[in-house]
Amino acid sequence: MRELGKLYGLGIGPGDPELLTLKAYRILTTVPVIAYPISENGNSLARAIAAKFIRFDQIEIPICLPFNVKEPSQPYYDKAAEEIAEHLKVGQDVAVLCEGEPMLYGSFMYLFQRLSGQFPTEVVPGISSTLASAAMLGVPLTYRNDVLSIIPATLDEIQLRDRLTVADAAIIIKLGRHFTKVCKILDELGLLHRALYIERATQTNQQIIPITEVEATEVPYWSLVLIPSQTQGC
Amino acid sequence: MRELGKLYGLGIGPGDPELLTLKAYRILTTVPVIAYPISENGNSLARAIAAKFIRFDQIEIPICLPFNVKEPSQPYYDKAAEEIAEHLKVGQDVAVLCEGEPMLYGSFMYLFQRLSGQFPTEVVPGISSTLASAAMLGVPLTYRNDVLSIIPATLDEIQLRDRLTVADAAIIIKLGRHFTKVCKILDELGLLHRALYIERATQTNQQIIPITEVEATEVPYWSLVLIPSQTQGC
Repeated sequence: MRELGKLYGLGIGPGDPELLTLKAYRILTTVPVIAYPISENGNSLARAIAAKFIRFDQIEIPICLPFNVKEPSQPYYDKAAEEIAEHLKVGQDVAVLCEGEPMLYGSFMYLFQRLSGQFPTEVVPGISSTLASAAMLGVPLTYRNDVLSIIPATLDEIQLRDRLTVADAAIIIKLGRHFTKVCKILDELGLLHRALYIERATQTNQQIIPITEVEATEVPYWSLVLIPSQTQGC
Repeated sequence: MRELGKLYGLGIGPGDPELLTLKAYRILTTVPVIAYPISENGNSLARAIAAKFIRFDQIEIPICLPFNVKEPSQPYYDKAAEEIAEHLKVGQDVAVLCEGEPMLYGSFMYLFQRLSGQFPTEVVPGISSTLASAAMLGVPLTYRNDVLSIIPATLDEIQLRDRLTVADAAIIIKLGRHFTKVCKILDELGLLHRALYIERATQTNQQIIPITEVEATEVPYWSLVLIPSQTQGC
């Protein structure tokens, strides 16, 4: 019987290709098959991050995801898992390129659920844009007993307020069209003066803008607000 | 006037040397001076992670930290900052090796506070053991609207209970001698069956143990409990 291929969930970091780990680089450059999610216009951030390391003889599987959030995503992941499984069944290793950290809000997790029971699987951790944003902004994030919360801006106002109230430090992600709501709550909680805004952390088009000067209509999904701890250093 | 050296806060990841980023590898192998914290017995986890990449002609600065938590740490960081500054003043770049992510509970942050105002400084993000533990345990951590909280076990019982109650997913760090207290609270909150225990994630002596079988007296500082989200996938 033929040996099965191995599935890799390959964390490739937040954007700067130099933030791939040595391990992700080794696997990316040696597997016969790579897969990556693509957006509506056919672009892929994951592929762009890894582009300069991809060999011409590697098989590429673009993974279509639903573009309308109201559309059921199950059939899309089913189809992608089937396509990947075809390669694994004949003994070809497949690396799924994952922006940031695969197990943190990652679309890879849906493939992991479908495939890890049938095929040998390894998840390679990557640098998450959430934590990397502190380095880019040049601010210490948490000290000693601080609690850090990573909070999606997609929550409703009451939940956002509750979660922010109990966090010593917070990273608010998935901003996009929720930016105005988030700013209103930060202002109410007296947190606006501590809040730092960053877009596309570590990518070539990274932007750091004072939060009060951000154009609400131009906030991309790949942006976040960081509220560093107020704990004093020593 | 001589040009100043550059200070790097170099995230070198949680333990596996292959989890250094390409960027950390490049900087580590080209700076003339490296610095790293050492423990009471003179050992250094940070140096051990980077050991195979360190050149014989690099100057090494071991940073002594207070071993007794009740001892004031200020004089130790003052001394380390002074020693590092001597090299920066004469134009030598210095990379401070940081386990995990430098800006997340990192001792580098105290050097950053002392030195970044006087010298060009760059923080290079690294993989945090907190997030990497999900990959090692093979569990998706957070989906869609989930809030993730990173919670130090050093908090008191009331605070721990409050913070855990509102977290969809949690990572409890700095376990050590707080393990029994944490388990008691997890049990009270009905979370014990969801809790996963890991020691020294990605290090060669990594251990994954069912939480009910962990010997409370043998829990190291470098251990954590992960409570993955219960949100269903699709």
